Amino acid sequence: MDEVRIIEIKKSIFEDNDKDADKLREELRSKGVFLLNLMSAPGSGKTTTLCKTINALKDSMKIAVMEADIDSDVDARKILENTGVQSIQLHTGGMCHLDAEMTRQGLDGLNLEDVDLVILENVGNLVCPAEFDTGASKNCMILSVPEGHDKPLKYPLMFSVCDLVLINKIDVMPYFDFDLKLCEEYIHMRNPNATVIPICAKSGEGIDKFASYLKQNVKAAKA
Amino acid sequence: MDEVRIIEIKKSIFEDNDKDADKLREELRSKGVFLLNLMSAPGSGKTTTLCKTINALKDSMKIAVMEADIDSDVDARKILENTGVQSIQLHTGGMCHLDAEMTRQGLDGLNLEDVDLVILENVGNLVCPAEFDTGASKNCMILSVPEGHDKPLKYPLMFSVCDLVLINKIDVMPYFDFDLKLCEEYIHMRNPNATVIPICAKSGEGIDKFASYLKQNVKAAKA
Repeated sequence: MDEVRIIEIKKSIFEDNDKDADKLREELRSKGVFLLNLMSAPGSGKTTTLCKTINALKDSMKIAVMEADIDSDVDARKILENTGVQSIQLHTGGMCHLDAEMTRQGLDGLNLEDVDLVILENVGNLVCPAEFDTGASKNCMILSVPEGHDKPLKYPLMFSVCDLVLINKIDVMPYFDFDLKLCEEYIHMRNPNATVIPICAKSGEGIDKFASYLKQNVKAAKA
Repeated sequence: MDEVRIIEIKKSIFEDNDKDADKLREELRSKGVFLLNLMSAPGSGKTTTLCKTINALKDSMKIAVMEADIDSDVDARKILENTGVQSIQLHTGGMCHLDAEMTRQGLDGLNLEDVDLVILENVGNLVCPAEFDTGASKNCMILSVPEGHDKPLKYPLMFSVCDLVLINKIDVMPYFDFDLKLCEEYIHMRNPNATVIPICAKSGEGIDKFASYLKQNVKAAKA
């Protein structure tokens, strides 16, 4: 098995992140690459969700993954071992988020030839990553059932900036006080246009819907 | 039922947070007040743990709580309704952490007369709050079982700065791949002196041990 490549991300020197993000988004569009920025709190199941989804998609498109973490290469190794797709680890050096320039450093570390879909797994954090446009084509977040249905009330910006909210670990719903309907109401209070897909990454339930969502977006990015 | 008081925290102007934190810690020591800084990822059960623990302690000491969140007053209201102790909500205005000066603004909003124990529930975030000394007497964090046992590998600083790690939601251990022994090893790799207490805030299991820990520290703060 190949060793996982680790890139030590440097702090951005760009002052206008929004402008830089728009530029990166435009570059990706011209290359026909769809970049998904995946965010969540620590431990909500980002990597497991990615493994299941990539295995459902990898025969129909070429995928690459960037795993951002403060330390360790646990996630990039997990992706590589479970899916075989190109996966690199980005070390943020203690930083709590990625911005567009940091994302670009990650993309420069990938071989993007013929790649259709790049997934950036952002740092596990519901606050700071929401404040920085990475240049991604779309933003997605995972909220897991054990975290509680009140999270859109407490972390408004994260839910506002996400096009897609995956509600993960629905298999343990009976063991937690989680009101799915109320949660969807809170999400749409923050972002009326957000798509919500309940999933269970462990069993694979709902992964087909997430995979369809990505297929459609990858197709649209090439149009 | 009283309305919950909300304080809009302003960004600190102090340049040397460490110095300011030491000063605050000394002031609290001279008043015989023990301040616990409670941190965790979103949804790990901080507020539920506090409700159970405060109800176990409130007959033997006077307690006040500061609930920091970006938005909403869900937590301060929950503390007040479930325990009756003095509870205020601190709004951080989008900020991802509290520092010593922000903590001081919160303390200024409390009536500290005869108060033995103040608990600061920090913003739900495993990254940024670890970087800022709040001036608290001790740091405590909650890691919940659904988040996974690998978190000390990914969020090293948080585990390094915590004197006490509560492992919550141990009742759902059978439904998750969580290795308690391995988790304790990872925690002690980051901080060999950390105390680890497994709890279930929902059922109350282990809360007596957390309450004893606080009792001892409150007593020591008055010595």
